[in-house]
Amino acid sequence: MAERTWNVYLSGEIHTDWRERIAQGVERAGLPVRLDAPICVHEDSDDCGTAILGAEDKAFWHDRKGATMNAIRTRTLLGEADVVVVRFGDKYRQWNAAFDAGSAAALGKAVITLHGADLNHALKEVDAAALAVCETPEQVVRALAYVIRGELPGRKGSLAAE
Amino acid sequence: MAERTWNVYLSGEIHTDWRERIAQGVERAGLPVRLDAPICVHEDSDDCGTAILGAEDKAFWHDRKGATMNAIRTRTLLGEADVVVVRFGDKYRQWNAAFDAGSAAALGKAVITLHGADLNHALKEVDAAALAVCETPEQVVRALAYVIRGELPGRKGSLAAE
Amino acid sequence: MAERTWNVYLSGEIHTDWRERIAQGVERAGLPVRLDAPICVHEDSDDCGTAILGAEDKAFWHDRKGATMNAIRTRTLLGEADVVVVRFGDKYRQWNAAFDAGSAAALGKAVITLHGADLNHALKEVDAAALAVCETPEQVVRALAYVIRGELPGRKGSLAAE
Amino acid sequence: MAERTWNVYLSGEIHTDWRERIAQGVERAGLPVRLDAPICVHEDSDDCGTAILGAEDKAFWHDRKGATMNAIRTRTLLGEADVVVVRFGDKYRQWNAAFDAGSAAALGKAVITLHGADLNHALKEVDAAALAVCETPEQVVRALAYVIRGELPGRKGSLAAE
Amino acid sequence: MAERTWNVYLSGEIHTDWRERIAQGVERAGLPVRLDAPICVHEDSDDCGTAILGAEDKAFWHDRKGATMNAIRTRTLLGEADVVVVRFGDKYRQWNAAFDAGSAAALGKAVITLHGADLNHALKEVDAAALAVCETPEQVVRALAYVIRGELPGRKGSLAAE
Amino acid sequence: MAERTWNVYLSGEIHTDWRERIAQGVERAGLPVRLDAPICVHEDSDDCGTAILGAEDKAFWHDRKGATMNAIRTRTLLGEADVVVVRFGDKYRQWNAAFDAGSAAALGKAVITLHGADLNHALKEVDAAALAVCETPEQVVRALAYVIRGELPGRKGSLAAE
Amino acid sequence: MAERTWNVYLSGEIHTDWRERIAQGVERAGLPVRLDAPICVHEDSDDCGTAILGAEDKAFWHDRKGATMNAIRTRTLLGEADVVVVRFGDKYRQWNAAFDAGSAAALGKAVITLHGADLNHALKEVDAAALAVCETPEQVVRALAYVIRGELPGRKGSLAAE
Amino acid sequence: MAERTWNVYLSGEIHTDWRERIAQGVERAGLPVRLDAPICVHEDSDDCGTAILGAEDKAFWHDRKGATMNAIRTRTLLGEADVVVVRFGDKYRQWNAAFDAGSAAALGKAVITLHGADLNHALKEVDAAALAVCETPEQVVRALAYVIRGELPGRKGSLAAE
Repeated sequence: MAERTWNVYLSGEIHTDWRERIAQGVERAGLPVRLDAPICVHEDSDDCGTAILGAEDKAFWHDRKGATMNAIRTRTLLGEADVVVVRFGDKYRQWNAAFDAGSAAALGKAVITLHGADLNHALKEVDAAALAVCETPEQVVRALAYVIRGELPGRKGSLAAE
Repeated sequence: MAERTWNVYLSGEIHTDWRERIAQGVERAGLPVRLDAPICVHEDSDDCGTAILGAEDKAFWHDRKGATMNAIRTRTLLGEADVVVVRFGDKYRQWNAAFDAGSAAALGKAVITLHGADLNHALKEVDAAALAVCETPEQVVRALAYVIRGELPGRKGSLAAE
Repeated sequence: MAERTWNVYLSGEIHTDWRERIAQGVERAGLPVRLDAPICVHEDSDDCGTAILGAEDKAFWHDRKGATMNAIRTRTLLGEADVVVVRFGDKYRQWNAAFDAGSAAALGKAVITLHGADLNHALKEVDAAALAVCETPEQVVRALAYVIRGELPGRKGSLAAE
Repeated sequence: MAERTWNVYLSGEIHTDWRERIAQGVERAGLPVRLDAPICVHEDSDDCGTAILGAEDKAFWHDRKGATMNAIRTRTLLGEADVVVVRFGDKYRQWNAAFDAGSAAALGKAVITLHGADLNHALKEVDAAALAVCETPEQVVRALAYVIRGELPGRKGSLAAE
Repeated sequence: MAERTWNVYLSGEIHTDWRERIAQGVERAGLPVRLDAPICVHEDSDDCGTAILGAEDKAFWHDRKGATMNAIRTRTLLGEADVVVVRFGDKYRQWNAAFDAGSAAALGKAVITLHGADLNHALKEVDAAALAVCETPEQVVRALAYVIRGELPGRKGSLAAE
Repeated sequence: MAERTWNVYLSGEIHTDWRERIAQGVERAGLPVRLDAPICVHEDSDDCGTAILGAEDKAFWHDRKGATMNAIRTRTLLGEADVVVVRFGDKYRQWNAAFDAGSAAALGKAVITLHGADLNHALKEVDAAALAVCETPEQVVRALAYVIRGELPGRKGSLAAE
Repeated sequence: MAERTWNVYLSGEIHTDWRERIAQGVERAGLPVRLDAPICVHEDSDDCGTAILGAEDKAFWHDRKGATMNAIRTRTLLGEADVVVVRFGDKYRQWNAAFDAGSAAALGKAVITLHGADLNHALKEVDAAALAVCETPEQVVRALAYVIRGELPGRKGSLAAE
Repeated sequence: MAERTWNVYLSGEIHTDWRERIAQGVERAGLPVRLDAPICVHEDSDDCGTAILGAEDKAFWHDRKGATMNAIRTRTLLGEADVVVVRFGDKYRQWNAAFDAGSAAALGKAVITLHGADLNHALKEVDAAALAVCETPEQVVRALAYVIRGELPGRKGSLAAE
């Protein structure tokens, strides 16, 4: 019987390489995971609405058209995810990441947060809704390896009972 | 890993070629999309109930039998769609299109409306529940290309982070 | 034990007196009904968004602000209704009425449509989702009187078994 | 028949007087509104978990105990709200406010955001899920007055059709 | 604090006095119960649709109009019941009673069936979805007295721990 | 793109060949349909519980064990069906068929009933929840052919717009 | 405006006075709380099924009849609770308490567990689904006082912002 | 058409070979079943949280990190199961098994319990929510064989009507 594919949605910060590091880790470990994400080209994500549907004079509606366009993707992919990883970085306020975390929690998804320890206090409510709080992308990969296959670093090849 | 297939339901107007134009655009762009639609042969859609289940004297029940027969299809296909495109034209009142939009919104589907700007005011409540308001089928295709693959016209080949 | 109050939401046409006729009939019959409705002053309904949140240059966004403002009311009151009556008239396309009907049906509400027989064919899909199709406001009142108390015109005082 | 009471949950910033201004406005207008909110005494909100359940050495678990304690309140009151107002201020990252907005949207609540125009771009995804975007508490009050009673500033006493 | 009122919907057979016996038992025991039921005047229940909405030539549509009219009542009252009692008698096939039981079970309601032991085999699937299978209306009353207040016949006044 | 497979659950009567006739019709028409059904060997269906889990002295518990064992199958297959066909015959009371219809309707499935016209009055509430009322298995097949592919007898090869 | 009443369901151990201590604490603090619980007279809870519905020879079915009778109460009261407190003691295995906790968590209720620290390891999965883990009934009362009114022991009269 | 695969989640006891016996039985019978389970290496299951996310001083938080890590797996696999088998043994209190049973029941899954008759009384509430109560893994396999294919031991090759 074919191994189950796990859908993992990677929400949040788009300016560092955390998604690539998770993707590489998942591939290296050979995990049966489909990774989904928002469109991560910043300008495209900002301009997609007006580029497709026509320009706007006001920045507010320019933004609105882009935000709802991107929401078509988010709603669908986050909505069918098994696990939603939400990454918070230092630079931006990333309210959309916290918004995604709130949606995911309300939909009963397994949420994993990913951020430095310096953000612990500011993110305490979001972390409280998560099933794992990671500091590095590698921890996310190890969490997936354990959750999906029971592989634990430094242990003999443990296996899920199947 | 196989690319995800997106289910897109095309609701509304059946007298113009907008569905064909979306189908062609989707095919040309090679998008992983399954397009579904109601039965679009007008007479068949009207007569299907009585043709299969027996004639009726009253137009009201003739119509009812057809409407519920068609609803078997709509309920199933709209119910599993990721995206519901709803097209409004000039000629008919197309209350069934607006009804589908209401159902889709209540079910949490991503709704895209498609109509000329002259209908903006009349459709303001429906548009307000949509994540994109398009004027041409080609805009719908471009929206799908961006949402699914991050492709944006006039930009260098942007890619979703996967 | 206090009699149960039924919540009835009256959606659709705002240019005739059908809501008043239902309200009078309900009062005359002494039915335990709370009637809710959208804001029915046409200009206010159109302008509420910009009047409160600030003007817009484009008609499209003027309309959008109003439509979402009105949606706060609709979503709440329609969402807690037991019965949703949807009225269609001759003059306007009233796509918002059909949209409300679609939402109500998807939410499992009991839908009653109210329109002239000349609209039967155009409304066949909406009517097919309704539990009663009325032509006059008085029929709606009689339907409520029967449904709530078992009162039927021309019958001896029939009573629900309580 | 008694007027319907609207439940409005006020989420977000706790360091300015926006909740008081909404409360005063609602009272002055005599609106049938029950206002709910998180516990807004900052230290108490931070320390409630350990004060009741026992101290923790690590700040992380100190925070966790507080966050889940507060979540008992939030989950209940936000869960039964008709309208969720989410306030974002300048000083803090307020990821919990965005998290609440995400939960509220996923639960189908009517969301109103409240923030200065300077935050428009950063909040575009959250605003896109809101039915109204306000800049002042007084706009929130006016929105409630319109939504509940149809009252619009500068118009003759308009009334909901009831 | 006022005692909680339990909503109990009494579905099924309308030709014997079982509802009256439950009502009397509930009243005698002073239980905080609101009893709801379909309209139980047989002819009215059959004719309500055409009496209000206009006559039909075909018996099939005459029946349909009545059935959907009655469904407005059933959907609302069964939908808010805590407990649904479904009575099966000897004479009729009462498919509507079994239909109500199926709806109630799918909605997560507590179902109690009420029928003679001679129907046990025929009703085994329905009974399997019930939380109690009673043979007499008095057993239903005793079940309610126990469930609501912990009163058990022949025991000293047992009480729920409140 | 591979054609969508429709899941059709065939509930009800097990003593005639209606399921075989539907299966043959579906096969002949080459429809992409997966047909599911309860276990239709009468004695096995009756005895499965005790045969597997141990004998019971009382017929009531013998029946219960069988009914819940069969419910494992029904709950799963009916729960993922797109269309639920419910067949009523002359001989038995088939309350389980009506129970399945009630469950299916409450779960929002498309319900098709199948019975002779002589049962119309007795089944009026069940029929009122169905989207098609058929008298013969062949009509069910034709309904599926139309709903899935837009094929209508006596019409030129009409096609769904895909 | 009347203060909101919080529904708190007290599940689990029935052999100690923890419910009384919570009830007294709630009353002393004057909290607006309705406390619900299963029937806590052990023999009645065990025998209720057969006492009302008729004796059984086998202990298994004696127990089944009692368990489903009690489930009518549990399903209703736990189903409308805001907060579910689940108490585990030393003596019994109390699988029904853990079952209730699982149901409550799946239904999105706020769960509070109550048990000695010696049970921490055995209850780690249940505690992980709880928003507060208490060791004494007095902690539960203090948690309710904080959650409902913002009252925290040893702090000046803090108040929820309403 | 390919045979449907049934998802069966095996929850509970991890110290005996019951999962292996079910796996062997399923394989021997050639049943189309995907078996899922929690990670069953006891130490790994206990330590997974801290091994991946960092050590904790307190046993309570060591346990919490492990429990929520394991919950990512449970929530996903139990959440998509058709059938949840819950095994209770003699040695441990296995509150997590009962918790899983409560979750599964609240989610509408078909639950099968597996335990010795000596635990019948202690497990009566859990058994009451199950559709089958087995004493041996072989009975679980036979139940699956019947439910999926209609195979019954000692009967001639009975077949599901497909």
